[in-house]
Amino acid sequence: MKSDVEISQETAMEPITKVAKKIGITEDQIEQYGKYKAKINFDPTTEKAKGKLILVTSINPTAAGEGKTTVTIGLGDALNELHKKVVLALREPSLGPVMGMKGGATGGGYAQVVPMDDINLHFTGDFDALTEANNTLAALIDNHIQHGNQLNIDPRQITWKRVMDVNDRELRQVVVGLGGRTSGVPRQDGFDITVASELMAILCLATSLTDLKKRISKMLIGYTYDRQPVTVADLHVQGALTLLLKDAIKPNLVQTIEHTPAFIHGGPFANIAHGCNSILATQAALHFGDYAITEAGFGSDLGAEKFMDIVTPRLQQSPDCVVVVATVRALKLNGGADKKTLNEENLDALKKGVVNLKRHVEGMQQYGKPVVVAINKFATDTDDELTYLQNYVTNELQVTGTIINSWAEGGKGAINLAKDVMDACAQPAKFHELYADDDSIEDKMEKIVTRIYGGNGIEFSSKAKNALKRIKKLGYDQMPVCMAKTQYSFTDDAKQLGAPENFKIHVSDLQLKLGAGFIVALTGKILTMPGLPTHPAALDMDIDEQGRITGLF
Amino acid sequence: MKSDVEISQETAMEPITKVAKKIGITEDQIEQYGKYKAKINFDPTTEKAKGKLILVTSINPTAAGEGKTTVTIGLGDALNELHKKVVLALREPSLGPVMGMKGGATGGGYAQVVPMDDINLHFTGDFDALTEANNTLAALIDNHIQHGNQLNIDPRQITWKRVMDVNDRELRQVVVGLGGRTSGVPRQDGFDITVASELMAILCLATSLTDLKKRISKMLIGYTYDRQPVTVADLHVQGALTLLLKDAIKPNLVQTIEHTPAFIHGGPFANIAHGCNSILATQAALHFGDYAITEAGFGSDLGAEKFMDIVTPRLQQSPDCVVVVATVRALKLNGGADKKTLNEENLDALKKGVVNLKRHVEGMQQYGKPVVVAINKFATDTDDELTYLQNYVTNELQVTGTIINSWAEGGKGAINLAKDVMDACAQPAKFHELYADDDSIEDKMEKIVTRIYGGNGIEFSSKAKNALKRIKKLGYDQMPVCMAKTQYSFTDDAKQLGAPENFKIHVSDLQLKLGAGFIVALTGKILTMPGLPTHPAALDMDIDEQGRITGLF
Repeated sequence: MKSDVEISQETAMEPITKVAKKIGITEDQIEQYGKYKAKINFDPTTEKAKGKLILVTSINPTAAGEGKTTVTIGLGDALNELHKKVVLALREPSLGPVMGMKGGATGGGYAQVVPMDDINLHFTGDFDALTEANNTLAALIDNHIQHGNQLNIDPRQITWKRVMDVNDRELRQVVVGLGGRTSGVPRQDGFDITVASELMAILCLATSLTDLKKRISKMLIGYTYDRQPVTVADLHVQGALTLLLKDAIKPNLVQTIEHTPAFIHGGPFANIAHGCNSILATQAALHFGDYAITEAGFGSDLGAEKFMDIVTPRLQQSPDCVVVVATVRALKLNGGADKKTLNEENLDALKKGVVNLKRHVEGMQQYGKPVVVAINKFATDTDDELTYLQNYVTNELQVTGTIINSWAEGGKGAINLAKDVMDACAQPAKFHELYADDDSIEDKMEKIVTRIYGGNGIEFSSKAKNALKRIKKLGYDQMPVCMAKTQYSFTDDAKQLGAPENFKIHVSDLQLKLGAGFIVALTGKILTMPGLPTHPAALDMDIDEQGRITGLF
Repeated sequence: MKSDVEISQETAMEPITKVAKKIGITEDQIEQYGKYKAKINFDPTTEKAKGKLILVTSINPTAAGEGKTTVTIGLGDALNELHKKVVLALREPSLGPVMGMKGGATGGGYAQVVPMDDINLHFTGDFDALTEANNTLAALIDNHIQHGNQLNIDPRQITWKRVMDVNDRELRQVVVGLGGRTSGVPRQDGFDITVASELMAILCLATSLTDLKKRISKMLIGYTYDRQPVTVADLHVQGALTLLLKDAIKPNLVQTIEHTPAFIHGGPFANIAHGCNSILATQAALHFGDYAITEAGFGSDLGAEKFMDIVTPRLQQSPDCVVVVATVRALKLNGGADKKTLNEENLDALKKGVVNLKRHVEGMQQYGKPVVVAINKFATDTDDELTYLQNYVTNELQVTGTIINSWAEGGKGAINLAKDVMDACAQPAKFHELYADDDSIEDKMEKIVTRIYGGNGIEFSSKAKNALKRIKKLGYDQMPVCMAKTQYSFTDDAKQLGAPENFKIHVSDLQLKLGAGFIVALTGKILTMPGLPTHPAALDMDIDEQGRITGLF
């Protein structure tokens, strides 16, 4: 069996100029990055969205892999095969996890975006630019204090952390500024992974370079000794930071193995950030395509909820159809099966595990738009298992459920799903918002927890209570809430699979993201800087003299 | 008067494909990064060097600015104007200093490489890739220790530091790994600026992807508890790190305002690293050009010495001519003039300061190749000052000295220099090496200090003495020495201008760079992580809705 990177490297790609031309992108709008990648100059104020929007999400991810990106790409290729003008809008992979765990963010088998090696590595440098801008700001803050601290910034209350696109647990908690008077002010600090940074969120929410700069100006970097907020505008460095992101803000264009155009742009993690690709990429896909397919991170409780509640109002368009991806294997795990027995038929575990799918489908249905289930077939699934699951979706959940096989067959493996999705998009439906901006912070979170997670309330730590008080006092409570929660469970405990009942979500802290325009609620033991496993994927990677790559999935 | 970025943004650039074609680069060899930047696939084993090599260096830099890059570009444009096939090979700017001090690395006035904004910002992402690879290695080292430390690495003896391309003094000395068992092992650590990293040196010395990987394998990352060296090969991650640099190793092509082709690739600082652009870029310039012009960092005591002693043996070609850049203003400063009075004629200071030029010229002459002095004219220089300096060069130093004015006139301002350089290149001359690999470490340093700096010996700190002992014991003393020394003085004290006599160089530590293949000698108070000034350049930078940039010099 060929590896993903082998399939990718053997693909006869079309020149990116040709891919672009097919959907009406002019030569003036293209900045090539090699022959198969490009950045696009796109102005959403003159080039209007007109396509149908399809949001792909999934059940809770498990160690079995649910293949959501593979389904998304397969669906795109299937619509392409049906001669529809379709454009994908996806997130960029983060290098930290690429070096850690096997499993990229570029699909798999014959449903991949290519060149997968470049996309999984530095791509067009967007994350590097974000890292650089983020850390330049950090240096400018400490430098301001070093040279007299005119703004009276309290070094104990700096909220702006440095970042790296590396899984580096060693940097979670550090002390910086040691070494005496000429080497900074000693203080406690910590690093996040780049995808957790507010700048990443802003890149994905900004609608223009001007909006980007405006949002950067507003970012909170800490507090003064008398507890007043200090922003980037106070430091006068929004111009320099915007300059560092002048290229990163442009959506990247690549193609699938079957030459379907794909914008890949921005990539906040959905567990610690808002989990959706850039609004500009989605707008571009909606402008150049009759169908735009976007994917939100992790399960529907994380990425899709945030797409609906945070992105939709800013995009000013809601999905016309939601696809929930499920697999027999992952549902068996959710039903209590042992990871080692997943290759064997286990209808009991499947029957117990489908409650996870049920809650995801019902959560998404509350937003008022049609929901379709994509059953992503694995080679080890038995006919009885697949039949049971399809019947469950049709009869119990009463939604369309389609088996797809894009990993092995590419677009051909998702033709039925494509037809179901087109039907769904043609249905008239009205978007229902889950909460309003002027709901209290507690109400917003309560609605997410009870209606999407299926829990029954929230518990705030004393730190979170203090943060809540401060936010209300400063008058910043009219913003949406971005939940930082484990992706493995509806609860904040990664081990509670299935569809747990009667649980509370434990909020340990609240963080103000004034530039992104939301409040991050940290729940459970969520970490904003991951670590590497015992045997990191990096140990198996190689590139030979001819540039042939191995070990990159 | 127009700013550099205004002149750059107003330039009618040629498409980079056209610039490439002019010198015989085929379409297959080009990977475009936008319309005006490209990476080049170049194989020095089949595409041989055939041009003449010109090395541009200078007197010690001062606050007055010596304009070495401006002269280098002007000289290239002048040869171009004389219809010679000329290609530049320059270093990439580091973002850290760009955000700190005004004054880029892309030339100035009408002698610039363009697009200067892109080149000064992330360019094609090479430094970001180096940063990422460097820090991925750091995370892999700490992760190895976290998961059982099979290699028995002593956390107190890790020599591999994290880096950032930011001037961030706050990170010079830090404690990492705090927060308990799941968040790493607490230890003292520190960050360097990316341009000081061994990976940067390796990128600039590697002759192929295979050589890059071989060098990465050899890099020393620390010692075991029983004081045995630990290398990247022991961790088995050379493949992953090479993969992260697969694009960074390809030379970047841009153009000057007058459309002269310029490879800009790699950029180690000459004060803390070896200070020369990549060997691959120089080889490419020598292959595609009849004249290749390269520039080494800071004064001839730093970049040029390292070009001669470290780069030349690996490039297997020595310069056919050395150009030493001098200015009246900088020599007046070297002669004791006050910075505030530089606009006024001061022949006394000039007469005192020329000793600095003398020592640089005589240092370079020891390598056996012709030396030419370029007197870079500033608007405030008086005729008497210029005449005095030209006469001094001709009569006292007995070398060719030419006044050039490329900042205001571009290539036209350096026609005479171009002619002098062509004459010099036509002279038969043999390269003399300053030291041999099998000289002892002390002898190598002694030769650099006495023959190039004009000092009379070395003093080792006790730390340096211990390091020296360890290096000898391990058998790694057959490598060249890379001096880390202030750029402002021949001595290790930045305040000693002119041509000081009877001084010793104080070596505080020696560092083994097994991948780069040299030993770094830290002298005086040299820092490998700079800081930002009271008013960083970042505060004045901006970009407007139309993408017009201000404040970037």
